[in-house]
Parts: sequence; structure tokens; C-alpha cells
Amino acid sequence: MTASETLSVAIVGGSGYAGGEFLRLALNHPNLDVTQVTSERSAGTPVSLIHPNLRGRTTLKFRKAAELDEADVIVLALPHNSAAKRIAEFEAKGRILIDLSADFRLKDPEVYRRVYGEDHPAPEKLGEWVYGNPELHRDELVGATRIACAGCFATSVILALYPLLKLGVLLPKDVIATGLVGSSAAGASASDSSHHPERAGSLRVYKPVGHRHTAEAVQELPGNFPIHLTAISTPRVRGILTTIQAWVPDGWSDRDVWTAYREVYGTEPFIRIVKVARGLHRYPDPMLLDGTNYCDIGFEMDQDTGRVVLMSAIDNLVKGTAGHAIQSLNIAQGWPETTGLEFAGLHPV
Amino acid sequence: MTASETLSVAIVGGSGYAGGEFLRLALNHPNLDVTQVTSERSAGTPVSLIHPNLRGRTTLKFRKAAELDEADVIVLALPHNSAAKRIAEFEAKGRILIDLSADFRLKDPEVYRRVYGEDHPAPEKLGEWVYGNPELHRDELVGATRIACAGCFATSVILALYPLLKLGVLLPKDVIATGLVGSSAAGASASDSSHHPERAGSLRVYKPVGHRHTAEAVQELPGNFPIHLTAISTPRVRGILTTIQAWVPDGWSDRDVWTAYREVYGTEPFIRIVKVARGLHRYPDPMLLDGTNYCDIGFEMDQDTGRVVLMSAIDNLVKGTAGHAIQSLNIAQGWPETTGLEFAGLHPV
Amino acid sequence: MTASETLSVAIVGGSGYAGGEFLRLALNHPNLDVTQVTSERSAGTPVSLIHPNLRGRTTLKFRKAAELDEADVIVLALPHNSAAKRIAEFEAKGRILIDLSADFRLKDPEVYRRVYGEDHPAPEKLGEWVYGNPELHRDELVGATRIACAGCFATSVILALYPLLKLGVLLPKDVIATGLVGSSAAGASASDSSHHPERAGSLRVYKPVGHRHTAEAVQELPGNFPIHLTAISTPRVRGILTTIQAWVPDGWSDRDVWTAYREVYGTEPFIRIVKVARGLHRYPDPMLLDGTNYCDIGFEMDQDTGRVVLMSAIDNLVKGTAGHAIQSLNIAQGWPETTGLEFAGLHPV
Amino acid sequence: MTASETLSVAIVGGSGYAGGEFLRLALNHPNLDVTQVTSERSAGTPVSLIHPNLRGRTTLKFRKAAELDEADVIVLALPHNSAAKRIAEFEAKGRILIDLSADFRLKDPEVYRRVYGEDHPAPEKLGEWVYGNPELHRDELVGATRIACAGCFATSVILALYPLLKLGVLLPKDVIATGLVGSSAAGASASDSSHHPERAGSLRVYKPVGHRHTAEAVQELPGNFPIHLTAISTPRVRGILTTIQAWVPDGWSDRDVWTAYREVYGTEPFIRIVKVARGLHRYPDPMLLDGTNYCDIGFEMDQDTGRVVLMSAIDNLVKGTAGHAIQSLNIAQGWPETTGLEFAGLHPV
Repeated sequence: MTASETLSVAIVGGSGYAGGEFLRLALNHPNLDVTQVTSERSAGTPVSLIHPNLRGRTTLKFRKAAELDEADVIVLALPHNSAAKRIAEFEAKGRILIDLSADFRLKDPEVYRRVYGEDHPAPEKLGEWVYGNPELHRDELVGATRIACAGCFATSVILALYPLLKLGVLLPKDVIATGLVGSSAAGASASDSSHHPERAGSLRVYKPVGHRHTAEAVQELPGNFPIHLTAISTPRVRGILTTIQAWVPDGWSDRDVWTAYREVYGTEPFIRIVKVARGLHRYPDPMLLDGTNYCDIGFEMDQDTGRVVLMSAIDNLVKGTAGHAIQSLNIAQGWPETTGLEFAGLHPV
Repeated sequence: MTASETLSVAIVGGSGYAGGEFLRLALNHPNLDVTQVTSERSAGTPVSLIHPNLRGRTTLKFRKAAELDEADVIVLALPHNSAAKRIAEFEAKGRILIDLSADFRLKDPEVYRRVYGEDHPAPEKLGEWVYGNPELHRDELVGATRIACAGCFATSVILALYPLLKLGVLLPKDVIATGLVGSSAAGASASDSSHHPERAGSLRVYKPVGHRHTAEAVQELPGNFPIHLTAISTPRVRGILTTIQAWVPDGWSDRDVWTAYREVYGTEPFIRIVKVARGLHRYPDPMLLDGTNYCDIGFEMDQDTGRVVLMSAIDNLVKGTAGHAIQSLNIAQGWPETTGLEFAGLHPV
Repeated sequence: MTASETLSVAIVGGSGYAGGEFLRLALNHPNLDVTQVTSERSAGTPVSLIHPNLRGRTTLKFRKAAELDEADVIVLALPHNSAAKRIAEFEAKGRILIDLSADFRLKDPEVYRRVYGEDHPAPEKLGEWVYGNPELHRDELVGATRIACAGCFATSVILALYPLLKLGVLLPKDVIATGLVGSSAAGASASDSSHHPERAGSLRVYKPVGHRHTAEAVQELPGNFPIHLTAISTPRVRGILTTIQAWVPDGWSDRDVWTAYREVYGTEPFIRIVKVARGLHRYPDPMLLDGTNYCDIGFEMDQDTGRVVLMSAIDNLVKGTAGHAIQSLNIAQGWPETTGLEFAGLHPV
Repeated sequence: MTASETLSVAIVGGSGYAGGEFLRLALNHPNLDVTQVTSERSAGTPVSLIHPNLRGRTTLKFRKAAELDEADVIVLALPHNSAAKRIAEFEAKGRILIDLSADFRLKDPEVYRRVYGEDHPAPEKLGEWVYGNPELHRDELVGATRIACAGCFATSVILALYPLLKLGVLLPKDVIATGLVGSSAAGASASDSSHHPERAGSLRVYKPVGHRHTAEAVQELPGNFPIHLTAISTPRVRGILTTIQAWVPDGWSDRDVWTAYREVYGTEPFIRIVKVARGLHRYPDPMLLDGTNYCDIGFEMDQDTGRVVLMSAIDNLVKGTAGHAIQSLNIAQGWPETTGLEFAGLHPV
């Protein structure tokens, strides 16, 4: 494997937003050559009809999944519980599998059953997959050929909390996360709840308790903490902003939190600590991250009470899905980690 | 008929936005008593489940149209070409019929066929209906029992152009109208084009040529002018802003335009001439009209060229549909014309 | 005092959003006659130039505060710490004073000093004012002539938590509130942070800790609970959605929460419990409340952990400010409590 | 001059949106090395404080213009009428000057005086500058050292009309352009009209007649046509959508228009003809162009009347300003024309 090699890529279920975002990024990646994109509904039509930002960038047409040819990398962008049921079929077609759904994220099939309400279709495979979060699993990702891309909300919670939990400094009290998300997180299919007049001005609590990504956060984070997530949809299209309330030792100041995050994330290419004393943009804001692979993390201590308010912002389709996957693949293949993920984001926008 | 009488009202097709808006206004109207609302899809459920702004305001439940009882007023809020096919059924149930669709707006069945692509189901009835635009047809509306509510885009075009055409001062050149509209104009049914991620940030030309409401404007306006309408959807939910380019005699100034609009609209309760020399809100803006029955009209002369830019703003669901209908009914019944339409609008919003 | 009397009203500081909203509501109130509106910056200009929704509704012009004449009711819509400094001046001009700022909300001058960073200008007056929250202080409001209108965020927190704290059922654990708010809450003055390109797409944590309204909530709510509020600005203009995480006894279900809210709020005219099993609008959403005086309250139990997620939604300028004030005044004067506050809200919008 | 050379760049007035966008693009351009950015107001602070998308991308700090050192390229991102007054100063500091303002766009000082209301400060220099529109002036741009970047609205009008005027097929009737624009076009300074509560929901006609960019369009387009532009601000932050009504010979169909645009723009790297028979995205939409250098152009014939509706969409800060400038510089330097302008745009967003 060399830095200049090129892998062929097939995207299965490429008419959705996750698949489309992987395609956008892969078309701009010097080591990836997308040769196939499948869509049952749109087979035969140009991909740029569904992903109009790619007009003039690709002449690919959708094909049916049944026509899938071999490829070096197969990216599975299917609804939850679809990829796992057909995993043997995909194993036969590609050496490297990347799953953007939730199918291979949870290690424990019992947890999967409880969270997703049905038995896992291929529990014996779960051990083969690496959870696609480079900040936690960089070493395991090296050489990996099965990458289960982390969930978007899970990523926003995990990356915000990880340093304090890794260092073992959080007090054992309930951790409260409140996540604000754009409409793209619900996918590309129109529904009553995505109807513009009902959604454009809405601040809608859509999952006050029991969000499925909580299980990923509990699995990935040290300490088996009670983490509670309330999810609210906002008028944005992309982006997640999560605020988290947690409790640190008496006497902790902002400086202590800084030190912890610097220690754990000091060299991370896609983590930025955003806590600025002046100006408009003092904390993370997903507005600034559309199209980028950054996870911006901020915090503020309430010294009177020992409470720290953590904040994380991501683009749910990039660091929350397709970008995270490409970053993981870059590591797996030994390519520079930021390859294809250089976009800085826009301001204003 | 006395000002203190109360009429019973049945709304047929009341789960859509036009029917819901009529219901909201009628519940607040001292002479109207809504006793029935039909919806095939939602029969049996409380209307406040579909129109959540009416929580605590009504205990009505949807029923099927087949269960329609008699009522003094029957409001038809059905898809185009539905009411006309069943008009005998509704005539048997109510003395006064108000149609919010396009079925009875056009006087000439041949024009109807050309515009809507099929024969009119009840051409012999067309002569019975009054076009529900009080500014043009106030006298005809007195005592009317068949009111064909004007189209929303048609209203924005007609009310902006009427004074200059009535006074016969427009030069015989093509009139160009560009209409910007919110997503509620496309109705309450979710579709790919109303999917929030595809629509929230969009400025989408959806009808560059051939908009159906053009035929209404041509029918209603004097002079048989060539009027061209380009319709563009915007990120707003409610509201239409239409700009119109027309040509006036050499030497005309803003003052001449003022005089014309004052002369024709001087005492209209729902027309405001908006042309202010300073401040933020110098011309009509639909932002200020959500929920109101106003049509704000502004203009600006380009004296060098004899071009006048007319601007009109309405709430497409109120002055564009349900409010216009209630204003027409108020006139028909001899009630004060502004009854039930007093809401001033919000600022900011 | 009789239900048919009319009081003259002067609004001091009427060019801002709070004063403008009071004006809008008062113009529609049968017992109120607004005779004066002051603004230092806009003196001499028509109020409808600044509040364009009132075009055609009033011919009032702004005057300077120095020109204030006597009135039955003086509404103080000034920046914080302004009204208290000049309170003797206003006491001399009107029998009834309503303050929309924070100046007379906190009972304890020491708490005021800690929260607002300066000594209260008139601490001896604090005892004369009633905290303008009808749901908690209805009896005290009867006949009141000094009404300190509750803060908007405080209202959203207080009304959501009050039943559980009044009934004494909350477990003694930290209460976490996360409030999402529109841009109108920051007032009518342009600033870098309100610049549209910087704000339109932003999800901005602007007060992660130390929000001033927390002190109001702690003062008003029984039990001296530790309440923590994180405030986030959203792309909306009006509205607050607050989610609150609190802890109830083992075994509590949704039914127990229902019972508590029904018991405490059963007859409240402006509280709606919103928890619907189906449809799009299952929980409170400020989208539905623009212009209304409702506080919608919802909840969801996480029975596994004993956590209840409370949600409240208000229009920050109505139930959060001017409507709350008018409701309080209605009670004080013995008028029907809903007078002038009948607007149901729009859908869609 | 070789393709691998690197030029040093100084951006004068780099705290605004145009300068910030040039900086973003230049940081990603292999042949450009930004060494200086000036801002009087923000001198001494990191550029990423004002342009937060560049966090982690540059360590540059703003300096005062008085501290400007020599550079190969000096980019002038100053308010109109500022650069021209000080042009000698900038000529002394850099070999290549790019002006993003309107100062050097108009060739005729008399037109400048009429449009901008004052005498041009350096009329003798006007002849040295090339109008920075590659589609019209590619040959003149080769080797150019004075590039006057085209205006954003002008670009949207010029590129939409150019093929029909170059081919001489437009009928001699008034051309009506209606331009919808986002708030970033008004710059980075907060004002009453950019205050979020006043702007977020607004459709505001801000220039019904007399838009200054009209003069650029008339200068650049063949035929000296009467072109009229009405400009409307929308809730978007970036982007311009312009619809244009023009008149073609009897019998013209969509196919004839296609042929004309293909003939003139066949090989243009940043022009895409967007006219799709199906799907959501049938015409140009600025939503799809944020951050890109594309100008998407569409059209629709009204064969009954000989009217063609042209549509163009751009990102006002990229193809409308900074990207257009870099494309021009690429041509001037003999670099591949798309260098640094590869971003495809996002969908959804």
C-alpha cells in the first residue's frame, strides 16, 4: 500500500444524503475513484440529477444494487438494518467495507436488540468492525477493512466528553446532553414532518428521551456514565450543536478544562478548541462548519457549582458521517489523515 | 338579514391550509358558527390535531364529506376541479357557497379548458358566481350567494395594477410581473419539492412562464393587457411579494402614481399604500402581513424611462384566500367589512 | 372600577420591541386607550414608522419622555436600571405603573446587586411591586398598582417547573434548563451579533452559565432548588423553547406528571398541556405561538432513570413580556383575564 | 512566469466579506501566499477572530494599511471610492493590483460621475484596468496587472444576457431584470437594515430602480440595450438569483436558446446551463452555489409571446467577487483557470 495508490469505490444506496456526501468528498479525493453508485429508485439516471451540486463533476449514473460489480471499497449507505442483512453479498464484492448506518457500531448484540428492537442479523460479524472514530480508535483503524462509521449525535457527545472521561475527572453525576440538529439528519425522503411549512420555523423536540445514539456514547466512553440526550430539530439544514452539562471537581476553573482538552486532543487535525474571549464567535457554532470535517469544542465553567457546560459542533453529514468515514479510511490506508477533507468552511453563510 | 345574525358554516376539505385558515378566522368571527369540518383522511380526529394553533379554541372533529349536514354557508376548500364536479351536492346542502379553489373563477369555459387542461364540469353554473375580489366587485358581492375566491397570485397582480388600468393610463407595452411566494402556497401535502432540506435555502423559479393565475388577471383587469408572470418560491412560509414593471405616460412622477392610487383605493379598508421616504420599511413586505387581510401596495417611478415599478404584498392564505373570502362574505351579508379581520400583524416576526 | 371603564395609557420607551408589542396589544384592548408613546430617538415621528405593523391603526407620534403627561397607566419599557432611577418621576404621572424591565422583579436588593452588578437605585420601593406572573400571584395582582413584569426566560422556566415544585415532588438534584431563543429577545438595536449574515444560520450559545433570569426562577419557585440555565440563540425571531431535566420519584409515569400539571394548572386560561401521541405537533413549539399569550407545556418521562424532560414554549414578547403584563393588568382591574389576548396564533407560519 | 511560481499577496481592507472571501480562496491556492491583511479597526488581532472559518488555517494578524509592505499582488477590498483616491500608494507597493470595489469598472468618467455622484479621483487610470469578467475579456486578461473585479449583480445580468446579445438576436425591447440577493451583499457592517429581527423574514425591495450595477451591464453588453434592474433582498445570506425577461425572434424555441448558449459558452469552465426536464432542481438556484465559482444559467421560452425568461445564479462573494477575481488572476498569470476554485458546493445545505 502506497500513498499514491488509487482505490475504486462503489457507493451502495447513493441517492441519500449520506451517500451523496461521501460521493462529493470522494470525487475530490486523490486516492479514490468512484466507479459505481447504486440507487433502486433512481437507477439509470445521472447522479447529478439527485445531487445537483455535482453537475459537471461526474458523469456517473445510478445503477441497481443487483448490478454491483467488484470494487476495492464498498460504502454502504443504506437504511439501518439493511446492510447487515446482506453483508455476505458485500463482502464478496469488496475488500474494504465502510458502513454509514448503525448496523455494526454496537459491539453487544443484546444492546443492539434493546436499542433497535430486533435481533442483529449477523452478530458473529460485529467483532470484525472498528468503530469509525479516529480520535478514540486511531490505532485500531490502521489497516482496518471493516469500518462502522460513528453516529452523528454520538460523535457530538463522545468528542465533547471524551477528554474528561479519559482523564477520569468527571464526578459521578448524571450527564445531560441537549442536541440541536438540522433537517438533513432525517434523510432525503420527504415526510409530513419534513414538509417545509411545518418545519421551517419549528423548534421541535423530537426525541426527549431514549435517543438511540446514547448507546453508542455509553459504549465508547470510559466510566459507564449515565448520559441523557434530548434531541431537538431546528430550522437549519446541516449541523449539530450539542451542549452538555457535567460536573468536575471542586475548584476547577476554565484553565483546568483547557489543560485537559489540550492534553487529550493536542494534535488532533479535526478538533478545534473554540473558547474565545471576544468577538462574535466565542463558542462552537455549526453555521461555520457546513461542508467541513471539524468538530469544534468549547466549554464554560460555572465555578460556583462545579458544573462545566461543554459544547460541540459538527456538520452531521461530514464529521457526523461521510467525512468521519473518509478520515477513518485515510488512517486505514496510511494516507495523510486530512486528504480530501481540506475544505475550511464558509463565513458568512 | 341583520348584523347580529349568526350563520352556521361547514368547511369541506378543512384539513388543508386554506380550509384551516378559514376555520381560524371564522372561529373569531361574531356572525359565524362553524359546525362542521370535513376531511377524508383525518375523519374522526380533532381538528386541533391538524391545526395545532386551534388547541383549546375548538372541540370540532373532522367528519367525512359524505356525512355533511346542511349549513347556511358551505366553504369549499378542495383541490382544483373537485368542487365543480360535485357542485349539485353542495348546492343541496347550503344556501351560500364559497369556493376557495379555481373552479368558478374564470367566466369563459374555453379559457378554463385552455388553462386547466380539461373541460369545465359545470360550465352552465359559471355565470352564477361572483369573483371574490371586493375592491373590484363590491357592488356585485352585496347579497351574493356564490363567491369564487380570487387566486392568491392573481390578487397580488390585480390589486397592484387595477388603478392604472381602470384609469386607462398604462402604455400598451408588455407588463412583467415577478412573484415571490412562500411554501404554504403549495398546500399541506408533503412532496419532494417541499422537503425541508431541499427548500429551506432555495430560491427556486417554479413557474417562469404560463402561470395559471395569469388568466384571472387578464379576465379581471381592464384593457386586455399582455401580462407575464414569473413565479419564484422563497424560504418564507407565508406571503407573496410581487413586483410589476409597467409603463406610464411621459412626464409621470411618483406624485401622479400616488394620485391614481388614492383616487381608486382611497377608502378601501384593506389596501395600504406603502411608500415611505425613510426608515427600514419603505415598500410593501409580506413579513409584516402574516395573518392579516391587508394588501400593501407600493411603487417607484423611473422617470428617465417612464417605467413604474409596482409592488404588492399579501398573506397568500388571508388576503390571498380565506380572508378575502370572509371580506367578500361580510359584504354579501351586509356586515361591517372588517369583521373578523382585525388582526394587525406582528413586528418583528 | 367597572369592566367597561377605559384607562389612558402612556408607554415610556415605546420604540423598542417590548414597548411596541404592548402598544399593539393595547390598541386592540377595549379598556385601554393609548394616548402617549415616548422615544428619545424617534420623537416627532409617527409610531407606525418604527412599528410598521401598526400602519393605519394609529396616528400616534412619539414624544420625548420629558413631555410625558399624566395617564392612568404608565408602562415602562426602558433598558434595565433606567426605570428605577427615575421612579419618583413616573409615580407622579400615573396611578398604575407597569415595568417591563428587570428593575422591580427581585425582592432582595442584595440579590439584585449580585445579579446586575450595581446597587438598586430604589430598594425601599421593591416591596411595593407584585411579580407579574398571574399563575403564581393571581391573588396578589387583584387591585395591584405596581406590576413588575416577569422575565421571558424566567417565565419559561418557572411555568414549566412550578407544578412539580409546588407539589413538592421533585427530587433534590440539580435541575438543568436549556433555553432556545429568537433574536428579538436581544432588543431592537442593531449590533454586530444581530447582523443578519452572522446570525441567520447561527446556533450560538450566548449564555452557557450565569443567566440573570436564573435569580428570578430561584426567587419565585418553592424549594430553593439549584436551577441551571444555558441560553442559546437560534435563527427564529420570536419565541423561547426551554427543555428542563428534573428528577421525580421512583415509579413515576407520564400519567403522574399529567395529574400534577392538571391539578395545578387545570383552569389557567393561557397554559396548555401539549403532549400528543400522534401527529407532527406532539410537544410545545414556539412556531405556533407567535403573537399569542400561551405558554405551552409538555413533558416526557424516562421511567428507567426517573428523569422527566419538561418543555415549555412561549412568545418572548407576549407571554414573555407584554402579554403577560396585560394579563396581569386585566386581573388587577377586574377585567376578564383574556381581554385583548385572544389571538390564537397562525399555522402554518 | 511559470505555473509553479508563487506570488505574495496583500489584502487591503481584509476584515470585510469580500476580503475575507479572497483570503479563504487564496489560502487554498497553490500559487498564492497571503502575507499581509490590513484592517484599520481590527489591527493587531488574528484574522481568524473576524473570519472564524479560518481558525487553524492561518496565523495571520491584521495590520494597519499604513504598515503595508510590498507584495506581488495587492488586493483592494475597500469601500467604493476609497481605492481610487489612494491608487498611487498601492501602485508603489505591488506589481499586480486587483480591485474588488467599483472604482475601476466603468470606462467613462462621466458615467462614473452620474452613477456614483462624484468625480472619479483618478480618471486617467481608468484605461489601464481590465474589467474582470473572464467570459467576456479572457484575451485581455492574459498578462493583465490591473484587474477591476466585476460587480456581483452586474455579473448575474451580464452572463445571462451575453450570448443572446453577442449573437445579436434579442429584439429591441426593454429588458427587465429582477435580482434576489442575500444579506452578505450589503457587507460586514451592522446596520438597522441588517438587524436580524428586521431582516430574517423580509422580502424587501431595496432598489426598485436605479441600481448602480446597471451601468456596468450596459457598458459590457453589446447593443446598448435598455436594461432595467429591480433588486430585492431575501432571507438568504449568500447568493443572487436573477430572472430576466427578454424578447427573441418569432418562432424561437427552447432549442434555439440552447444552441445560442452552447455556442457562446461551450467551453467555459464555470458556466453551467441548467435546464432539466425533471427532478427538483430544474433551473439555477443559488442554494447550490454557496462557496463555488459557478454561474448557473437557465431559461424558458414562452413561445406564444416570443418572451424568453433567463435565469442566472451565483454566489455573490465568489463568482460575484473574490472567485471571479481569482479566475481572472489565474488567466492573467497563465495558471490553469480553475486553480483554487475547485469546490463543488454542498447539497443539501
